[in-house]
Amino acid sequence: MKKLIPVFLALAGAFSVQAKIVTQTIEYKQGDVTLEGFLAYDDATSAARPGVLVVHQWLGLTDYEKHRAEQLASLGYVAFCADIYGKGIRPQNTTEAGVEATKYKTDRTLLRTRVNAGLDVLKKNKLVDTRRVAAIGYCFGGTTVIELARSGAELNGVVSFHGGLDSPTPADGKNIKCKVLACHGADDPSETPADLAAFEKELRDARVDWRLIKYGGAVHSFTQPMAGNDNSKGAAYNERADKRSWADMKQFFAEIFQ
Amino acid sequence: MKKLIPVFLALAGAFSVQAKIVTQTIEYKQGDVTLEGFLAYDDATSAARPGVLVVHQWLGLTDYEKHRAEQLASLGYVAFCADIYGKGIRPQNTTEAGVEATKYKTDRTLLRTRVNAGLDVLKKNKLVDTRRVAAIGYCFGGTTVIELARSGAELNGVVSFHGGLDSPTPADGKNIKCKVLACHGADDPSETPADLAAFEKELRDARVDWRLIKYGGAVHSFTQPMAGNDNSKGAAYNERADKRSWADMKQFFAEIFQ
Repeated sequence: MKKLIPVFLALAGAFSVQAKIVTQTIEYKQGDVTLEGFLAYDDATSAARPGVLVVHQWLGLTDYEKHRAEQLASLGYVAFCADIYGKGIRPQNTTEAGVEATKYKTDRTLLRTRVNAGLDVLKKNKLVDTRRVAAIGYCFGGTTVIELARSGAELNGVVSFHGGLDSPTPADGKNIKCKVLACHGADDPSETPADLAAFEKELRDARVDWRLIKYGGAVHSFTQPMAGNDNSKGAAYNERADKRSWADMKQFFAEIFQ
Repeated sequence: MKKLIPVFLALAGAFSVQAKIVTQTIEYKQGDVTLEGFLAYDDATSAARPGVLVVHQWLGLTDYEKHRAEQLASLGYVAFCADIYGKGIRPQNTTEAGVEATKYKTDRTLLRTRVNAGLDVLKKNKLVDTRRVAAIGYCFGGTTVIELARSGAELNGVVSFHGGLDSPTPADGKNIKCKVLACHGADDPSETPADLAAFEKELRDARVDWRLIKYGGAVHSFTQPMAGNDNSKGAAYNERADKRSWADMKQFFAEIFQ
């Protein structure tokens, strides 16, 4: 267990309380496979609070997702980073990442099972108010949280950040019980207009409560500083879209966690 | 001048102040044409504050826009409803509305001139901090505020609610100096996918700072209770999308009025 330097939370714009973000590596199982996730929460209170599952991009669970979990903990949530690939499986380059991500993208049943195993860990945490649970994900993780919704999981909402939105089984949209927010780079070359149209059709046909935000000038990976800043590569950080999509997520949470 | 019943504003979630929303009908001119707008502000303070222009839907300036102006005044803005059609020109049915709206949709130069006349009135109000000005519009008014931006007007941002986004002169996108937020019903039959794609291309090519939000399950007129609730007509109120788009507007203002 690691204790971070105390940070200050501004509550209601009127006063501050001291918070300690506690983090913890957690081993858990899906079938016979060992997975290694990461928990973060503020221990200034022991009150039950909403839980947010965080699903990693194609490189697996990295410091990037852990930092997001700490940010979510600072906002007052219990955050748990799921591990989809398995303990020790942390691709070191994009070739390895592609191999791992493809395993799950081509086996959506396995992907759903893995992400639900992470959701179970979150929901069993005694600090989590299980009536108020969401999932967010980045790139591969964005795809994954939409698959979580398609699996029929019981949660309030999912947020995809530059996730692949296509589905090999669009009829599964009918299983979705939660609200869906898709944050999408308007210049993201990895989703074709046909992919987006299919995603919209899936949710429309299934009468899901959804919204999609297109951020002008943003390509794939727009929330990730490690993606660099060259839009011509098709994946790049975009500070403006990063901040806006984070604010949009917070607004979504304010609505679904009422 | 009319004084409304005092309302309470919650500021910073911590305390309340009593506010009086003052409203005023204002005559102004564009060339030889007399226009009749509507001003609303909170007179609990005389401090300069951001100004928001409100542009009406195809029926002309009605109680609907006046109520929006009062809502904006309650949020702390000076709000001014422009009159595009002219004093006394208030269509009584959709046939008349279609005739009026078409006049301006087919003469974008005139439309731009008319809306800029309203912007001038707002900017000259001594309560307005002219460095912080935005415009919002509904349906026809949504189209109009985008045209305002295309005219090269100096303001911080425009918000279109279910506005027509097409342009006969897409190269004019290069004149846009402000940020653009388009709030769009994902099931709005009045905008084709090609219209939306053209709008995005216009803003992309001109490197405008823009975003577009698609609200699932919403058709045209989704912010307007008078549109009824039958989506099959292509125009209907949608409370969920109404509330969300209003919240999205507020978040946009928080960003552009920093």
